[in-house]
Formats: sequence, C-alpha cells, structure tokens
Amino acid sequence: MSLDGLTGGLSSWSTDPAELARASADRSGGVPVGTPRLVVFAKSVVEVQRTVAHAAAHGVPVVPRGAGSGVAGGALAGDGSIVLDLSGLDRITELRPDEALAVVEPGVVTADLDAAASAHGLRYAPDPASAAFSTIGGNIATNAGGLRCVKYGVTRDAVLGLDVVLGDGSLVSTGRRTVKGVTGYDLTGLVVGSEGTLGVVVGATLRLSPLPVRTATAGAFFATAEDAVAAVTALQRAGVRPSTAELLDGPTLRAVDQAQGGDLHRRGEVFLLLQTDGFGAEQELAEAARVVRPLATALETTTDPEVAARLVATRRAALPAIERHGRVLIEDVAVPRGRIAETIRAIGGIAEATGVRIFVFAHVGDGNLHPIVLAGSAPPERVERAVAAIFEQALAVGGTLTGEHGVGALKRPWLAAELGEPVLELHRRIKAVFDPAGVLNPGKAIG
Amino acid sequence: MSLDGLTGGLSSWSTDPAELARASADRSGGVPVGTPRLVVFAKSVVEVQRTVAHAAAHGVPVVPRGAGSGVAGGALAGDGSIVLDLSGLDRITELRPDEALAVVEPGVVTADLDAAASAHGLRYAPDPASAAFSTIGGNIATNAGGLRCVKYGVTRDAVLGLDVVLGDGSLVSTGRRTVKGVTGYDLTGLVVGSEGTLGVVVGATLRLSPLPVRTATAGAFFATAEDAVAAVTALQRAGVRPSTAELLDGPTLRAVDQAQGGDLHRRGEVFLLLQTDGFGAEQELAEAARVVRPLATALETTTDPEVAARLVATRRAALPAIERHGRVLIEDVAVPRGRIAETIRAIGGIAEATGVRIFVFAHVGDGNLHPIVLAGSAPPERVERAVAAIFEQALAVGGTLTGEHGVGALKRPWLAAELGEPVLELHRRIKAVFDPAGVLNPGKAIG
Ligand SMILES: Cc1cc2nc3c(=O)[nH]c(=O)nc-3n(C[C@H](O)[C@H](O)[C@H](O)COP(=O)(O)OP(=O)(O)OC[C@H]3O[C@@H](n4cnc5c(N)ncnc54)[C@H](O)[C@@H]3O)c2cc1C
Ligand SMILES: Cc1cc2nc3c(=O)[nH]c(=O)nc-3n(C[C@H](O)[C@H](O)[C@H](O)COP(=O)(O)OP(=O)(O)OC[C@H]3O[C@@H](n4cnc5c(N)ncnc54)[C@H](O)[C@@H]3O)c2cc1C
Repeated sequence: MSLDGLTGGLSSWSTDPAELARASADRSGGVPVGTPRLVVFAKSVVEVQRTVAHAAAHGVPVVPRGAGSGVAGGALAGDGSIVLDLSGLDRITELRPDEALAVVEPGVVTADLDAAASAHGLRYAPDPASAAFSTIGGNIATNAGGLRCVKYGVTRDAVLGLDVVLGDGSLVSTGRRTVKGVTGYDLTGLVVGSEGTLGVVVGATLRLSPLPVRTATAGAFFATAEDAVAAVTALQRAGVRPSTAELLDGPTLRAVDQAQGGDLHRRGEVFLLLQTDGFGAEQELAEAARVVRPLATALETTTDPEVAARLVATRRAALPAIERHGRVLIEDVAVPRGRIAETIRAIGGIAEATGVRIFVFAHVGDGNLHPIVLAGSAPPERVERAVAAIFEQALAVGGTLTGEHGVGALKRPWLAAELGEPVLELHRRIKAVFDPAGVLNPGKAIG
Repeated sequence: MSLDGLTGGLSSWSTDPAELARASADRSGGVPVGTPRLVVFAKSVVEVQRTVAHAAAHGVPVVPRGAGSGVAGGALAGDGSIVLDLSGLDRITELRPDEALAVVEPGVVTADLDAAASAHGLRYAPDPASAAFSTIGGNIATNAGGLRCVKYGVTRDAVLGLDVVLGDGSLVSTGRRTVKGVTGYDLTGLVVGSEGTLGVVVGATLRLSPLPVRTATAGAFFATAEDAVAAVTALQRAGVRPSTAELLDGPTLRAVDQAQGGDLHRRGEVFLLLQTDGFGAEQELAEAARVVRPLATALETTTDPEVAARLVATRRAALPAIERHGRVLIEDVAVPRGRIAETIRAIGGIAEATGVRIFVFAHVGDGNLHPIVLAGSAPPERVERAVAAIFEQALAVGGTLTGEHGVGALKRPWLAAELGEPVLELHRRIKAVFDPAGVLNPGKAIG
C-alpha cells in the first residue's frame, strides 16, 4: 500500500518513529508485535471514512484510538497497521439541558463532558476512574464502568445513538434521540463494547441525568471479606440502593496505609466505602448503618463533604498505592454476587500458591473485582499462572473475564472458555457484516 | 412439507381450525393473510429446537408466540406457517434472592414472576400494563416498557442472559449471570426487542431489584399539555427522579370521567400522575409539589395507599375507558422530551383535520406517547391517514415509530423512513447470521 494515496487527503498524520511508538501502546503494559506504519490524527468524519476506506481497499489493519488509557491492550497497534487517533475530534456538538441530552464527538474527554453538564445541574453518569483522561469514544468502545454504575448503569445505559464508520468506510447512524425506542435491532448497544472491531465511533448522542441533590457517605471496616459481602447483601435485603459500594481487601488497605502513613488496617482487615444519594440520602445511610453495624469492626458515617472526601480518597488511593510497589497487571473479573467472598478468598490462595503479590479492590455491589497483580513480584511464568488461575476461578463460579475493561488483545486466550465456540462463531459472522474486509482492529476483542 | 415428520416428535400440537385461528391473531386487531398449518404447544427446549430445525429444512415460517397480547401484529401468523406457542414453558427455574436474580422459562407470566420475587422483598422492575397476562418471552421479544421504566429501565435493562434457539434449530446461551460483563458483543441486548426474528427465547436470566421502601403519589391537573410538560421539565431541573410520570390528555380524561361518572376534567384539561419512591419519597414529592404547583390548576399529594390507589386507577382506567367507544388502534410513538407538548398538540390537529377521534396518554417522563385512535370514528382511509400523520409527526421531530410495542407487522411501511436503507440492510444481514433460512417470523420487525 502506498501511503500517498491516503495521506494526500488528510490534514494531520505522522510516520515519525517516536509518534508511532507512542500511538501503538496503551496502559495495559502489553507490547505490540512490530510497529504501525502511520498514525492519522483525524480532524473530521470524512477523514475517518477516507482512512478506513483506504485501509479496506488495501487490507491494512486500522486501530482506533482514544486516549490510549485502556488496560486490555485494545489499542495496541502492531506491524503495518494504521492508528486512527480520534482524540482531536473533541467538540461537544450539542448540550440540551431540558432534554438531558448531549451530542459529542468521540475524542471528548469524559470529565469534560461531565463538567459541561454539571453547569446545568446535570451529569454524565458513567465515571471510570480514568475519566480525567479517557475519551467518550474509548468509553463507548469498552462499555466503561465506574463507581456510580452500581446505581446508575454503565456506559451502554447512557448511549442513545451513535454515528459509526463501518469497515467499508461508509457512515451510518444508529439509535435515536429519544429515551425509549424499539424500531429495529439494538445496533447501538451492539457497537458499545465492541472495542473498535465493528466500527469507528465518530459521534454519540448521550443521556445526561440530574445531579443528586444530596449524598451521604460511610466507611466501614470488617474482619473478613465474608462479613463485608454479607453486609452488602443485607443492604439489598433492607431495600438500600447504594450509589457507591467499593471494597478494599487486606493487602490493598495495608498498601494504602503504607502510602499515606496511616493505620486504617487497625480498624479492620477489609474496607467498604458506601454512599447513598437522593432526597433521602441521610435516612438511607442511617438504615445502611443499622444493617451494617452488627457485621462491622468499625463504622463511620457522614454528610460532611470534607470527611466524605477523605473516605472516598481512601478508595481512590488504592491503585496508586499498589503501583508504588512496581508494575501491575490490572485484572477485572466479575462474579455473581453470591460468589464474591469465596472468590476474594480464592485469589488470596492463588497469591499464596504462586508467590505472586495480588491486591483486590472491587465494585462490590456489582461483583466486579479488580485483582491487581504485581508483575515483578515473582518470575513471569508464575505471574502468568496466577493470572490464569484468577480467570479460571471467575469462570468456575459463573463469572466473566472482564466486567468493564474489555478483552482487548490480552484476554483472548480465555475467550472461548467463556463464550464457547458456537457463540464465538456468531461473533465472527456479525463482525463480517460490519467489517467485510476484516480491517477494523483485527485480533482484538473477539480474537 | 409433511407434518408427520415433525409432529411425531412433539407432545402437544393442533391443526384444529379454531385453535389455529386463535393462535394466528394478537391484540393488534391486524388480520393475517391465510391460516397457519400447525400450532405447536412447546413442552421442552428440545421440542422448540425440533420445530425450528424442521421448519428451516422445509423453508416454512415459524411464528413464536407468548400470550398473544402484542399490539403491533408481531405474532400474526399467516398462510402455511407454524405457530410456536411458548406459553406452556412457564416455570421459574431459579430464584436467588441474595443474588437478586431469577432464571425463567419464556412462558412465565410477567406478574407471576413479580409476585414470586415480592415474597423476598424484590421485584421484576419492567411492568407493562399487560403484566397480568403477557409472558416474559414476549416482553423480551418486544423490549416491553411500563410505568416504572422512567426510573428503573425497560425490559432490556433487566435481562442478563438468554438461551436462544437460532434459525437452524441450534441452542446458544448469551450473556451471563453477573450484573456487569463485557466479554464479547452484547448478543443478549441484540436479541431483546428482535420480535422473534433472530431466535426463539427459551430461557432468560433476569435481574431483580429491591422493592422500594416507600412511595409517594401526586395527581396534578393543568390547563394545557404545555404546562404539564413544563412541569416535568421543571422536576428534572430540581433533581426530582419520578418513579412514575404519566399524562392523560383532555379527550382521555373526559373518557375516564364518562366511564366513571366523575368530573376530574373540571380540575384541569390535562392530568399528570407522579410518584416518587425510596427513603426520601415524601421529601422528593414535597419538592415535586413545590415545583409543579405554580404551573398546575389543581394538585393533590398523598402517602395514603388508598388515595394513591385512586390516583393510579385514574391512569389505569384510560385505555378501558377509551375502548368503550369502539375498536382502537394503540399507537406508541416516542419523541425527544423537548418536543412532547407540540406533538400532543399536533395530534389534536390531526384528529381535527381527519375527523378521527384520537386520545393520548403518555409515559411522559420518557416522551413515549400512546395516541389511541378510534378505528370506527371515521372511514378507514381517513383513519389510515391519521395514523400515517402521527408517524410522520413523530419522525419529523426526531422521534421514533415505537417506544415499546415493536414494529411487528403493522409499522413496517414506515420502517425505512426511520432507519434509512443502509441501516435496514445491516439489519437484514444480521438476521441472515442468526437465521440463514429466513424462517423466524419473516416479514416482521425489520420488514
Ligand atoms: C488509572 C486507570 C483507571 C481506570 N479506571 C477505569 C474504570 O474505572 N472503569 C473502566 O471501565 N475502565 C477504566 N480504565 C480503563 C480505560 O480508561 C477505559 O477502558 C477507557 O474507556 C478507555 O478510553 P480511551 O479513550 O483511553 O480508549 P483507548 O485506550 O484509546 O481504546 C480502548 C479501546 O477502544 C477502542 N476505541 C477507542 N476509541 C474508539 C472510537 N472512537 N471508535 C471505536 N473504537 C475506539 C480502541 O481501539 C480500543 O480497543 C482505567 C485505566 C486507567 C489507566
Ligand atoms: C391492554 C394491553 C396493555 C399493554 N400494555 C403494554 C405496556 O404497558 N408496555 C408494553 O411494552 N406493551 C404493552 N402491551 C403490548 C404487549 O402486552 C407486549 O408487547 C408484551 O410484551 C407481549 O407479550 P406476549 O407474551 O403477549 O407476546 P406475543 O404477543 O405473543 O408476541 C409478541 C412478539 O414477541 C414474539 N415472541 C413471543 N414470545 C417469544 C419468544 N419466547 N421468543 C421469541 N419471540 C417471541 C412474537 O413472535 C411477537 O413478535 C399491552 C397490550 C395490551 C393488550
């Protein structure tokens, strides 16, 4: 393929080795095989279409890219590929407070949309911890989750419609501007979470929601993960709907203490951050406290924003505190709620058996666990064995490889174990419908 | 096709003309062309597979059927087809209160699942007005909505995983038992709302949710639809999240009064039913009242279950009250929230221009309007013109043909106007992936 035929029609691109290296990596720590030949900094939908059409005509892989903050290797770009960087398409095209709706380009940074909405008493509910740098396009491609999604849903729940460039370079619009609608198949939901393998998202119509009028916060400590999970189950039984329910296991809590010079772990082995919101936030938290207290070793509740911020900071500190100990693999399994405690315990067993250090924090209300594996804490083959054992544990209890980060390049070896061959074959045939030439992020997500 | 090859392997089926006639109709009032050749009363998944495989081998249409309560003609069964009645597969296979999860067969009646869940302080959130007789399989196939979905989502939001018999008779499982999960494409969401054209739903893993601890209710009256919609917008601005927001227009309110011998319309031309729920239900309703009162001609708020039941009954009485006047067409457009009032006004104009009587009630919080067209109130061609004008109005303001009932057989003529030919073509190719022989409910949903 001659690049000239393509680059002649583009306003910004690079073949500079440093740019190519930067554009071929993400935050997974995965290393692509070889280097891409070109990075295109898309400045318009037409440039996206031109790039994909050219790639399709020449059978060259195109790797869509937002901020490159993914941790599953979805944006890794290997030999001879074209990286299609969408981060320059970063305008909020429409913001309609009365319709609680925004239309955005894919490169808009998640937190920027949220901030723009908040000026009107609204917010963009999905809040990945990477919101300060991840893009809406990347969030859509991975169906990103976050702390609020236990009550307010994941990215898919916030996407009403999409503009998508298909594998032949054509542009289609899916979905609608209305909250409800059942005309046709849910192509919008199908593209969400497809990790750039079905189309390039070039525009999105998003649902906003009212900022909660009040929030109340609790920090609880427990002797065991079993007790913490029992507390979460008891909350549900009491009709409490937390807006945040986050767990830190013992190793994580100690890492936070070490980083902050604190002694939180003296209050209990396991930490649970709870928030309630809405008009009855305080009453709901009071009921939560009533239910949780008998199971907890310590409990603090507050509506003081400063105290709340400190409790939330404990959760936010988890990943940076662990990363002080070296390079990490951020895993992301989800299990049925009744199997959370035993899975945390099993991961402890895996750490012991392999000699690999593993820390667990979790969106516990959704059963979404992040086992953080310290890559340098044991020889590579033992680290690999530990990661495999974590996946096997999740699948064995009816769980999934990935709750919110995606399969990317790195989890493909376990894909068939979760989906089974007939369902994988359906995936391949759906991909062929959207991308007949097979040029959109090949080798990712569905293998 | 000889039927013997099929019926030999089935436990219950009929070719009795009365059974065939019953099995070929739904609640749309639509009339199928010709009669089906066979109705199969499925008693097991294997019988479903056998029926579909046989039909595929012989190129015979299969029409899946739940309770036949659909109003879009999705279950109409025409000449030579096989009706596959799933209503006998009606067991709740699993109910796990602590995981807030149920596994059901497709023929379970919606209200039966809800009742079983409520014994554990839980509920099945989607609540179509037909819950007392519609099946979960039919709800899934149409992505049914209801009064609660303004706060708690539609059927798709409650479905975690599905067992589906594809067009070749093979059985696949999609989705998972976990709340979150992003392994693979969202095939579950794709099958939801596909109106039996992609597969026969033979099992579903469903999410349950806690019963609200408290509910508060208001009935408000307004001089105009504009004022009522302005009130709904003002609620959002105040951070109020109603769990129900239902509007009855002037003609509907008068029909209710006529049926009940009441005089509600003296309080205002338009009725709005509002509910809030959760720990702060009363405070939230008080805030709602503060915001709504300046716009309303009358307002009543209550936490007394009996008074609340009376207010809710006013809404529930709408359709029966209209049906007293003759056969109705139940339409189901949805429009962006900013265009609701003008659409109600435009529908009034359509009624005047065509001389057709049209009543409107609406899930107003979601912009989902049910214009109820009195079929006998004018000559058929004028009724047809009125219906077409309603669809055109919805599309002209960026809305959709159907918010929750589906396209079925009856709305196909307008499908291309909403989706466009390239997107329709994508639909056809996706259908071919799931149903290569094209035997699953052909001519429905996607044309
Ligand atoms: C510190 C940290 C915290 C994190 N916390 C969370 C969290 O809480 N929840 C969570 O879900 N994730 C989290 N992540 C992971 C990551 O931020 C998310 O996956 C995010 O959605 C990726 O967005 P991005 O713009 O960086 O996408 P990229 O990394 O650039 O790409 C991710 C995938 O999306 C595809 N893609 C990107 N843009 C498009 C587009 N416009 N069209 C089609 N495909 C596209 C890429 O090809 C790739 O497959 C975290 C990551 C870090 C480093
Ligand atoms: C009085 C009344 C009130 C209503 N209120 C509402 C409401 O509030 N909200 C709402 O959304 N709808 C409402 N409806 C419409 C209807 O009840 C819903 O569409 C319901 O989901 C249909 O369920 P069913 O079991 O009757 O399905 P059916 O009518 O038998 O079938 C509907 C469609 O689903 C397909 N189907 C059925 N079962 C399966 C299966 N197992 N696998 C694959 N495909 C299948 C059929 O082929 C058909 O296309 C109402 C109807 C009436 C008569």
